[in-house]
Amino acid sequence: MARDPRYDLLFEPIAIGPKVLKNRFFQVPQCTGAGSSRPGANAMHREVKAEGGWAALCTESCMIHPQTDQPVATVSTLYDQADVTNHRHMTDSVHKWGALAGVELCHAGGLANALSTRHVSPAAHQFATPWIPQAHTYEAEDSDLVRIIGMYGEAAKRAVEAGFDIIYIHGTHGALPVQMLSPHHNRRTDRWGGSFENRARFWVEVLETVRRTAAGQCAVATRFSIDQLSGPGGVESGEDGLRFVEHVTKLGLVDLWDVNISSLEEWGEDAAPSRFQKSNHQAPWTRDVKSIAKVPVVGVGRFTDPDEMARVVRSGQVDIVGCARPSIADPWLPRKIDEGRIDDIAECIGCNQCIARFEYGVSIVCTQNPTALEEYRRGWHPEKFAPRKDDELILVVGAGPAGLECARVLGRRGYRTHLVEADTTLGGHLRDVVGLPGLAEWGRVVALRETQLRRMPNVEIMMGTGDATADDLLEYGADRIVLATGANWTGDGSGIGMDCVAGINSALQAFVTPEQYFAGKEIGRNVTILDSDGYFMAISLAERLADLGHEVTVVTPFDRIAPYTDFTLEGPNLRRMMREKRILGRIGHWIESAQADAAGIELNLFDVYRDGSRRTQTPRAGSIPRNASHAVTPVRCDSVILCTGRRSKDGLYRALRLRFDAWASAGLKGVHRAGDCLAPRYIADVVFDGHRIAREICSPDPQQPQPILREQRVWGAGNA
Amino acid sequence: MARDPRYDLLFEPIAIGPKVLKNRFFQVPQCTGAGSSRPGANAMHREVKAEGGWAALCTESCMIHPQTDQPVATVSTLYDQADVTNHRHMTDSVHKWGALAGVELCHAGGLANALSTRHVSPAAHQFATPWIPQAHTYEAEDSDLVRIIGMYGEAAKRAVEAGFDIIYIHGTHGALPVQMLSPHHNRRTDRWGGSFENRARFWVEVLETVRRTAAGQCAVATRFSIDQLSGPGGVESGEDGLRFVEHVTKLGLVDLWDVNISSLEEWGEDAAPSRFQKSNHQAPWTRDVKSIAKVPVVGVGRFTDPDEMARVVRSGQVDIVGCARPSIADPWLPRKIDEGRIDDIAECIGCNQCIARFEYGVSIVCTQNPTALEEYRRGWHPEKFAPRKDDELILVVGAGPAGLECARVLGRRGYRTHLVEADTTLGGHLRDVVGLPGLAEWGRVVALRETQLRRMPNVEIMMGTGDATADDLLEYGADRIVLATGANWTGDGSGIGMDCVAGINSALQAFVTPEQYFAGKEIGRNVTILDSDGYFMAISLAERLADLGHEVTVVTPFDRIAPYTDFTLEGPNLRRMMREKRILGRIGHWIESAQADAAGIELNLFDVYRDGSRRTQTPRAGSIPRNASHAVTPVRCDSVILCTGRRSKDGLYRALRLRFDAWASAGLKGVHRAGDCLAPRYIADVVFDGHRIAREICSPDPQQPQPILREQRVWGAGNA
Repeated sequence: MARDPRYDLLFEPIAIGPKVLKNRFFQVPQCTGAGSSRPGANAMHREVKAEGGWAALCTESCMIHPQTDQPVATVSTLYDQADVTNHRHMTDSVHKWGALAGVELCHAGGLANALSTRHVSPAAHQFATPWIPQAHTYEAEDSDLVRIIGMYGEAAKRAVEAGFDIIYIHGTHGALPVQMLSPHHNRRTDRWGGSFENRARFWVEVLETVRRTAAGQCAVATRFSIDQLSGPGGVESGEDGLRFVEHVTKLGLVDLWDVNISSLEEWGEDAAPSRFQKSNHQAPWTRDVKSIAKVPVVGVGRFTDPDEMARVVRSGQVDIVGCARPSIADPWLPRKIDEGRIDDIAECIGCNQCIARFEYGVSIVCTQNPTALEEYRRGWHPEKFAPRKDDELILVVGAGPAGLECARVLGRRGYRTHLVEADTTLGGHLRDVVGLPGLAEWGRVVALRETQLRRMPNVEIMMGTGDATADDLLEYGADRIVLATGANWTGDGSGIGMDCVAGINSALQAFVTPEQYFAGKEIGRNVTILDSDGYFMAISLAERLADLGHEVTVVTPFDRIAPYTDFTLEGPNLRRMMREKRILGRIGHWIESAQADAAGIELNLFDVYRDGSRRTQTPRAGSIPRNASHAVTPVRCDSVILCTGRRSKDGLYRALRLRFDAWASAGLKGVHRAGDCLAPRYIADVVFDGHRIAREICSPDPQQPQPILREQRVWGAGNA
Repeated sequence: MARDPRYDLLFEPIAIGPKVLKNRFFQVPQCTGAGSSRPGANAMHREVKAEGGWAALCTESCMIHPQTDQPVATVSTLYDQADVTNHRHMTDSVHKWGALAGVELCHAGGLANALSTRHVSPAAHQFATPWIPQAHTYEAEDSDLVRIIGMYGEAAKRAVEAGFDIIYIHGTHGALPVQMLSPHHNRRTDRWGGSFENRARFWVEVLETVRRTAAGQCAVATRFSIDQLSGPGGVESGEDGLRFVEHVTKLGLVDLWDVNISSLEEWGEDAAPSRFQKSNHQAPWTRDVKSIAKVPVVGVGRFTDPDEMARVVRSGQVDIVGCARPSIADPWLPRKIDEGRIDDIAECIGCNQCIARFEYGVSIVCTQNPTALEEYRRGWHPEKFAPRKDDELILVVGAGPAGLECARVLGRRGYRTHLVEADTTLGGHLRDVVGLPGLAEWGRVVALRETQLRRMPNVEIMMGTGDATADDLLEYGADRIVLATGANWTGDGSGIGMDCVAGINSALQAFVTPEQYFAGKEIGRNVTILDSDGYFMAISLAERLADLGHEVTVVTPFDRIAPYTDFTLEGPNLRRMMREKRILGRIGHWIESAQADAAGIELNLFDVYRDGSRRTQTPRAGSIPRNASHAVTPVRCDSVILCTGRRSKDGLYRALRLRFDAWASAGLKGVHRAGDCLAPRYIADVVFDGHRIAREICSPDPQQPQPILREQRVWGAGNA
């Protein structure tokens, strides 16, 4: 199909300094978890997007010198010639498709933790760095600041050599330039502190130096958290923020403004999860900058809808549509708009699993796009699939996220695919999840797949079949069966460990699993939610029930409520929600036993941290007795919701295994498991699982993943 | 000097299967944080020890297949030919010195988290894996277990090809073999579960397979946590533990037993910090195994004293002295015993900084040995130093850990070195620290350096000089000055942030910094300790004061008490200590303000997690108001101890900088800072700092670290 003319303006070329963007789709700096030390992964992840029509692809935060050392999560580096070689591979890869390549030069200053190189970083002042207690930076001397400005220049030289078209100065999320600008962080009394001009001096001199180095060969951009949201004293848009834009505009130092908000502590206000912000939530700030700037402005806001993109450009809010997460969810987003394939767009659901994995120090993943960061090591392309090898009929049982994705990929490969679902609608447990507060957008996972599946002539969907038996499946006539039957919440208190908890039993009225809750089991006024799952279910049910007027307490063995939500950046606002809705939290405690009596339920707790690991005997050499349990006030309530853990729903699999002798005569070559049915995991991981098994369905044993390419130094291979 | 004959038995060769250890010093499997993907670092770290006389050097936990994926901390891998190449470099490096090389083959089973490869691991059962919520393994089918046994065989083949002499099967800290043996973790009803023989089957078949593969070319060993300390149901020494040793002994499957205790949850009972265990604390368990085994037994226990080593061998407790941490602290430990240089041994202090850094995912560090993991990338050898380049007189000011180490290295290099100390004894803040409960061994940092310094004719130590002034130093006649003047605890509540807290002032009687406490400032009965430092000071003072009869409460903004001590494995026993000594903890809270009145002090707290990041205004796009503070009951007490943060004591440096014009005429070429005086850090890091600047004192600017060799893939360089 052809492009809808109302999107034409998104495809207009636009000049930034000496370079021209071929259209207005711009992948702003974005972490991959691969950094520059896995050059294959890094380059191919960007290249697939270049192929998909993005006009520019930028690195993540790229450290300019070993002194600004910030490991744990993997960032990019541009220290030396080896880095130049690795980045060159990325820039070459995107240039092939007519896209520009950008690099975001960073000195982390007070955020550098010296964990890897052990080079202590100078900063505006002596800071205790986040993430590791007792790691401090030191107060930069004048000569240090001059030296750092020189480091930016040297890094810019290497950036030119590496083939970058756009050199960014990173001034968001607390990087050194914005530390220096902030009157809260910068209380110096020398020429680098005090007045606005003094505080701006460092950033301005960095820009001047880089501009001089680029010498018209590259566009110079800066990314600026115009409002750090950190209260009086931080950089605020109304005060120093817009003033800085004016100041730099007057000096003519940048060719492109990339505007966002927040400090690292409130990163979730920038990379906002859909639970708390809809798209374009940063409009007020970008609009302000656009009204002042004399060069193009790029702004972000998790844009996935071409109409909204056209509107923000047409309205003059921005010149260029910036995307990070939407470009991960759909690397071919611009191309699909161009080709009029709007309903093929894999829209970001704002779950922030990408960021969570980055924070764990590994490659990002994506719930919508299981090929993210698998482009190089598994050779997966988000839009290209190997044609089927044989004329097999493949039966996928269960239309949750894993089954849907498996069927979708099998369908794209041309297999005759039958997707059967016991229920009358698609989605598996997502059917219930999308009804939880703030999680509606997660339904995009189902909607996209349903849309695509319904268009495939080789895919047949059967719903409302009820639970299949082993006999049903054996008689079906399929060549292969993929079971994607999901998982169940346990009803006996087991989860983290394998032991159930005395007195907990979801067959009783007072104990309710999430599934039972969604099915309508009654809940008393005073509810305790047991959470050893640690992610969205317990806290979402807590919010829902508080909204319905219940008194809610969440008990968790973890050291904070819903710990995984700190990785997805939902944590801070979830805690604020708890305060507002008067949800109580009891952290670091877990259940010893439960008793039901006439008045309700009494839960006996133990203190996880003070009672150590719950051992019940004194080891021979232990210095401290571990036997006595620490007295803890019990919790009383009317109902207990059990978010303690999930177990694979694999009864069908086990039944089929028992009938193995009958497979051959039934023409059945294999029975495989995908998703929660194999092992309960995050939605992103079960989508991945369904995708993988469909890609590898004709391998000798599809259950065993094919080898992946590794990227590491090999001794003697001429590495840096 | 010659070896003392009473240590002769430590130097007897001992056969293990087809191989011969040249003596009884054995570096058991030990993490480096470099794994096998930084082959240079890995090999040179082991080679320096081989040169230092160890008879065997073993890898850390070495994963046999991508399905047993366990990132975050860096382990070793032996997946493929690239790994063979990298390990071969290590084995070649240690063979040069007549030492044997061992590899510890591991399948993590239920502990594999699939974060990196996304291959879901089979395990005895479906486990929720630690470290990341919602990552599960799946229950291995019979065919999975057979396949895994085959994986061990394939990995053993690669181990032979890589030149290893000893192939270990990892069965400690919760690896799959011990999961399968444990009736707590293994509740299977097939041939792999139930009876002892069934539970032992997996491990036995792995050993048989590896033995067959090794075919007499390698010794086969197993590392076994004979007692998991996990209460009824785990593997206990009295029950399945010793029985397993008997069983395997009868089958003749191992050439060497490596015995230790604990599960991963209680790793601190194995790699026990000196705070809780003296050396040889695992004696009861190793002695039991030795009484049954028919092959040599190696046991660990943080052995640093040759007399104790000789005793444990002579007494028949073990055949071979196993060391991990002591071999990091002094890679040349055997050689020093052999050469009669006992008082030159750098004895491990049991602080477990090595383990802490490994758990952060970076290279290990060592408080006693700053060259650990710097052998390759910085070219540092623990016992070899470049001779001085010129005849400079170098003045080191301050004899804390950084100053002592700096003077020691300058002395070894032949520089005329003067070490001046204001106080009358050496050690800096360690003077006070070693008096805290359980920390006496940390004094080894000072003792070793004092011993070595006093033997150096070119080093002069001056104590009791009182505080020097800039004039004093300018008149001294030194060519260079290294300031190592340390840091002070802040007295105004500042620490994590730069802001002080209203009402907190250590000039008042009720507020006491640690330094004031050590100097004798009086403490009331009811004490609150404010801890935003997060490591040993607050919790140690809490214990000391509780012992003295004070009522103690620790308030911390962190989500647990003394969070860094969980990285050093001190956390679990510290929390048990708190319970026993009735020390109260208030986590996740911090100080809004303090008021003194006639009855004492009232501390107004805020709830860090519920009040978000303490912002005081509502951002424009925020969905939830952040303004209102959550009501928290204030804390009342008589005294407040301020462990809130430290600031560099750099007044002398600033004074000298102001006199820069006078340097040349004073003959002063440079003034440099080392240790806490530059930036307050862990003791390991300030020792490193003193060491580094002494190594690099003749570089153009010794304050700027010299470049380090990196090990990463470079595109196009023929990597895996």
